[in-house]
Amino acid sequence: MDNSALIKELASFLRADQLLTSDEDLSVYAFDGTAMLHNRPACVVLPERGEEVAQILALCNKKAVPVVTRGSGTGLAGGAVPSEGGVVLCLVRLNKIIELDAANLVMVCEPGVLTQKVADEALAAGLFYPPDPGSIKISTIGGNVANNSGGLRGLKYGVTRDYIMGLEVVLADGQILETGNKCVKDVAGFALKDLFIGSEGMLGVITKVILKLVPAPASKKTLLGLYDDMTQAAETVSAIIENKIIPCTLEFLDRTTIECVESYAKIGLPTDCEAVLLMEVDGHPAEVDEQAAQIKEIARQGGAREVRLAATVEEGLRLAAARRTAFSALARLAPTVVLEDVTVPRSELARMVAYVQEVGERHQVKVGTFGHMGDGNLHPTFLCDERNEEEMARVEKAMEEVFSFAVELGGTITGEHGVGLAKKPFLPKQLGPVGMDVLKRVKIAFDPVGILNPGNMFD
Amino acid sequence: MDNSALIKELASFLRADQLLTSDEDLSVYAFDGTAMLHNRPACVVLPERGEEVAQILALCNKKAVPVVTRGSGTGLAGGAVPSEGGVVLCLVRLNKIIELDAANLVMVCEPGVLTQKVADEALAAGLFYPPDPGSIKISTIGGNVANNSGGLRGLKYGVTRDYIMGLEVVLADGQILETGNKCVKDVAGFALKDLFIGSEGMLGVITKVILKLVPAPASKKTLLGLYDDMTQAAETVSAIIENKIIPCTLEFLDRTTIECVESYAKIGLPTDCEAVLLMEVDGHPAEVDEQAAQIKEIARQGGAREVRLAATVEEGLRLAAARRTAFSALARLAPTVVLEDVTVPRSELARMVAYVQEVGERHQVKVGTFGHMGDGNLHPTFLCDERNEEEMARVEKAMEEVFSFAVELGGTITGEHGVGLAKKPFLPKQLGPVGMDVLKRVKIAFDPVGILNPGNMFD
Repeated sequence: MDNSALIKELASFLRADQLLTSDEDLSVYAFDGTAMLHNRPACVVLPERGEEVAQILALCNKKAVPVVTRGSGTGLAGGAVPSEGGVVLCLVRLNKIIELDAANLVMVCEPGVLTQKVADEALAAGLFYPPDPGSIKISTIGGNVANNSGGLRGLKYGVTRDYIMGLEVVLADGQILETGNKCVKDVAGFALKDLFIGSEGMLGVITKVILKLVPAPASKKTLLGLYDDMTQAAETVSAIIENKIIPCTLEFLDRTTIECVESYAKIGLPTDCEAVLLMEVDGHPAEVDEQAAQIKEIARQGGAREVRLAATVEEGLRLAAARRTAFSALARLAPTVVLEDVTVPRSELARMVAYVQEVGERHQVKVGTFGHMGDGNLHPTFLCDERNEEEMARVEKAMEEVFSFAVELGGTITGEHGVGLAKKPFLPKQLGPVGMDVLKRVKIAFDPVGILNPGNMFD
Repeated sequence: MDNSALIKELASFLRADQLLTSDEDLSVYAFDGTAMLHNRPACVVLPERGEEVAQILALCNKKAVPVVTRGSGTGLAGGAVPSEGGVVLCLVRLNKIIELDAANLVMVCEPGVLTQKVADEALAAGLFYPPDPGSIKISTIGGNVANNSGGLRGLKYGVTRDYIMGLEVVLADGQILETGNKCVKDVAGFALKDLFIGSEGMLGVITKVILKLVPAPASKKTLLGLYDDMTQAAETVSAIIENKIIPCTLEFLDRTTIECVESYAKIGLPTDCEAVLLMEVDGHPAEVDEQAAQIKEIARQGGAREVRLAATVEEGLRLAAARRTAFSALARLAPTVVLEDVTVPRSELARMVAYVQEVGERHQVKVGTFGHMGDGNLHPTFLCDERNEEEMARVEKAMEEVFSFAVELGGTITGEHGVGLAKKPFLPKQLGPVGMDVLKRVKIAFDPVGILNPGNMFD
């Protein structure tokens, strides 16, 4: 495809530093955080205002040129991998926090603001932005909205969707839509805002976000439970919830992950454990103390070999680091790391974890599993080498079986990473023909020319 | 329109008691809870299974016959008023609670279950279904989902949307779509579930609901603040939130409403107050006690003439009755009661309330206002007589001005009642031409023949 005419038109309203076309630049934007996927775009555009986004889309829509929108490019499902010969629309320069409105518990910002900055600014005002995807330090809030990112606090606090009050969205043809506002309640019209959340850049481009904040919890306690058996860990989670306690964090690591974390971060975990549970409660100090003591007792009765209760905030952070470093620790071990994201109803989690281990053994692939036990969201992480075709075929087969089993258990092929290019082949298994048909009808209603992230999620 | 052929076909798979066509029956189903709106349907169908709903829609879609879906018909925006000569699809016989899955904090039920029953069944298992629309005792959960109903706990607990994990929906052509599941996290595909929530029966018919439950709070305290000035009441609300307290209830009544409530319910409210605030906190007992004491102090400092803190659960219920009976108390006073539903950012509420009073005086219409102060959601209630055309014209004018001002303040024409037929003329003012255009595109994608609640929300 010859895009010189397009690039010329883009150059008529963008500065040279906003329009990248050199080989070196295009290589850098050829991929996101997903293993094995890359395509070469025609150019990269770096708008600085919503109006520029509108101009870019209007032009691309007229010329039927594919546009893939991205922030920091930390996605793990290939949702920000460019279309070959298309435009990469990178929003990192739309990076202003426009307003922190404490009276209404609201922050308004542009999509390119780093999520960590949102959290920090909120905290500075005594407020709390709960969603905390693993990538929080480097991912952008716009990317979080487009993927409805989860994180470590899903069970108690929900996910990104639960903190979005309004959006400004540029539609495929360049029209600007405002949806939602600072009201706690609004039922005027269909829930368009909610449709854009998690739409992976396929229905419009988010150029402004109205975020809901909550008061910061006054207290927090961290516990670590060490188990000789994964089922015991899962039973502890069930028992905690049966006791009407909703921790803000309920994470686990399996043995492979524990070994990697210990060798990487030297936290002092016994490497012969089959499971580690990270449990955190937050809220009013009296409630937190009570719940932490209850959890300690529940974990012990549930067969934990040892339960560590952090005495200080620093010790809590050190224990939490066991989980926070899991991905990095695993990633050290292999040239290619495929991080999966199946989710099942919480009650099925022990079965799912056991199945992943069994599949790994059967296909002789190395897999470590960690994740959000309270959410039923686990991340089987395949350690492999993409240069070894035979091995990759086994990994592919193992993944397919893992996805199928998750769907059989009433679960999903992706809890928080999105479908993207990576999980597209597996989506029809979960949604069925009626679901796939409706997705396509919605896509056509919003993007009739089909320029926005074409080939993502479905063909 | 001659519908005898349609009725004959419906009779081929519905029993006589499931297909109503007599004059008496059609009169009963000619309206919902909204003043002044009624239309005569051709027939009323009462399916008992999702498959019957699918058969009914497939048939109506083939014949292009309008279908208006309803539950108890308690809506206040005309969303369940039939199309003249169309079919009323009444789902009250789909009334089974299918499952209460405590391990996953989930209830699965059919749409015709009364919301109060959902709440009661949850509570019997030590769990809590927080949304509590004013109509909770008689409205159905399906109607709540279709309207994304709010209620008295929005600020702390959110609205119906926040408790819907999955839906089974029959599409306009009779196909059955499952969207969502029991997983806390799921980002596979667009958020179709969220699009159906609040879609007012225009995109599909909900035949099954997967509800999220939370542990029931251990303790609750109720306070009533009496004020000589509405602005002081609003300032108390702001001060509570600035102190990082999020009450589960923050309701208010204006003087007109106070007078009506006192004459109706004899609660012992001084009728010379300008505002009454009902404030409730729930959660851990230590936190609740602390917050109740803080609120008492904040209200006093904020100028409350008197603050009553209920000593017992029974006294709490008696104080809360002041707010719970507001609608009934006002409704006694006039033949026609038009209950409005504007919402503004919380910080603008005092201005909005003052404006409603000023508009009422200017147009010489009697209006009492009460509502959810913590949510910025207020219910100006116009007391009038629909037989008096001249008076109704003044009411209409006053309402228009109220809607316009709400939108000017960054608010919405409807916080929880929906658009329906009643607020359709005002929707473009809030959403603008781009928003209206997108709504229509979505409608066509889901219901190309246009049988589902046609003429609702927009033409």
